Amino acid sequence: MHDLSRLSVHTMTTKPWGLEDACRHFAEAGIPAITVWRQAIAPLGVKRAAEVVKASGLRVTALCRGGFFPALDGAGRQKALDDNRQAIDEAAAIGAPSVVLVCGAVPGLSQAECRKHIADGIAAVLPHARACGVRLSIEPLHPQYAADRSAVTTMAQARRLCQQLNAAGRADVGIAADVYHIWWDDQVEAEIAEAGRLGILHAFHVCDWKVQQSDVLNDRGLMGEGVIDIKHLRACVDAAGFTGDIEVEVFSNTHWATDQHQYLQKIIAAYRAHV
Amino acid sequence: MHDLSRLSVHTMTTKPWGLEDACRHFAEAGIPAITVWRQAIAPLGVKRAAEVVKASGLRVTALCRGGFFPALDGAGRQKALDDNRQAIDEAAAIGAPSVVLVCGAVPGLSQAECRKHIADGIAAVLPHARACGVRLSIEPLHPQYAADRSAVTTMAQARRLCQQLNAAGRADVGIAADVYHIWWDDQVEAEIAEAGRLGILHAFHVCDWKVQQSDVLNDRGLMGEGVIDIKHLRACVDAAGFTGDIEVEVFSNTHWATDQHQYLQKIIAAYRAHV
Repeated sequence: MHDLSRLSVHTMTTKPWGLEDACRHFAEAGIPAITVWRQAIAPLGVKRAAEVVKASGLRVTALCRGGFFPALDGAGRQKALDDNRQAIDEAAAIGAPSVVLVCGAVPGLSQAECRKHIADGIAAVLPHARACGVRLSIEPLHPQYAADRSAVTTMAQARRLCQQLNAAGRADVGIAADVYHIWWDDQVEAEIAEAGRLGILHAFHVCDWKVQQSDVLNDRGLMGEGVIDIKHLRACVDAAGFTGDIEVEVFSNTHWATDQHQYLQKIIAAYRAHV
Repeated sequence: MHDLSRLSVHTMTTKPWGLEDACRHFAEAGIPAITVWRQAIAPLGVKRAAEVVKASGLRVTALCRGGFFPALDGAGRQKALDDNRQAIDEAAAIGAPSVVLVCGAVPGLSQAECRKHIADGIAAVLPHARACGVRLSIEPLHPQYAADRSAVTTMAQARRLCQQLNAAGRADVGIAADVYHIWWDDQVEAEIAEAGRLGILHAFHVCDWKVQQSDVLNDRGLMGEGVIDIKHLRACVDAAGFTGDIEVEVFSNTHWATDQHQYLQKIIAAYRAHV
């Protein structure tokens, strides 16, 4: 039973709550940190959202999310760049040190084309991120999302992208490692260690992989409800020198349909038991 | 529009047909080769199945499938070994030069444990395969199946397993590369080339990845119905020196519900247009 000092919960995990409720209830439950999704900022506007977060006393782990760089035409790609710069501005405004990137993919483009749009897109917004003091955290996604959500699917691929994009000695571009997306990979241990060595392990997300999933997006398990050896991956990030927040990011129609106060207690219990 | 001289169709692709119907209708349609699933052998028995296949004049590309080595206890693992030896015997009986391995995974075992059971299992049955003149073809499966079907998920991992298991200069253990399982991997081109260089590229399976899938197992697309750049991967295996049959393996509740004669013509048209 470890303490909660490094626990962070994503607003999306308790999606039925708006930002104000999430901040209040997280703080009341003894959770010290929050990762804020843009969907939670939008109804309030960024100025009010920043006030709410600041008043809560919660530490802001990250902003979710930028990315989705690939597009079928130049206008779409430009729109993505504009949107990512706005995400960076929002991160700076709410005090988030990083923006998580779900890099994107579009049916109709090859994986190679998507990867080029992603590398070019991150390179294009990186100067703005640096100017704002905000890091960019590439989240490799499970290959089941390769067609329409992310053409970056492995830790190794994300690491190579970081190495390509970072100026020498910098870690402005790093990796958000989510157990849901990377647990199956026989290189995951080696790549977590390498990311640690390179100083690019920005973030660690936990949830679980249910063998039977009713929905490809929104049937993730709370830690302990699936097959991932989370403690093993936690030990890997510990050994890699990771000391940041441990973020609970669960998309679950099932859990969203329950009382969110009781669910928050389950999250805390699952964190203590399985992370 | 290329000819059909390398086209092979899996019995599972036209599942509503038994082995006798599949053999007759494939041959009538000008398809020269077949990959036989054990489910199609079982109702006839292996002796009669071998007669049916031989009488059809079809070339036998492979037997599907062995594998599923991991188990929660020793009895389960032994049962898997016995079953794989029987699959090898069936392959030899019907004139299949190889057995495709879906290596297996079991919720409750870690990926590392599953991988050990797999490596040990293949090593245990390999002498029998060699004695029977049958090759073993590891099929890396898409990571969406890592929990319960295969803890071997990438071409690179399969290649390392082959290198570990093959005696020097041998290619008794090789890879069955299925576009559905490997298309998302940014290392797929390099690994196809490396498999070719090592002489371990045993097989090439085609179908397609639909972005929206109604079923995690049985909603695969016919070539052209999804997002995979099959011609690109075909060019990769060509460049790697692969000259074997090109196997159409589609699991589809949708297509199985249609007239299988019309479907077979669609398969041929899709092969000509998209492979």
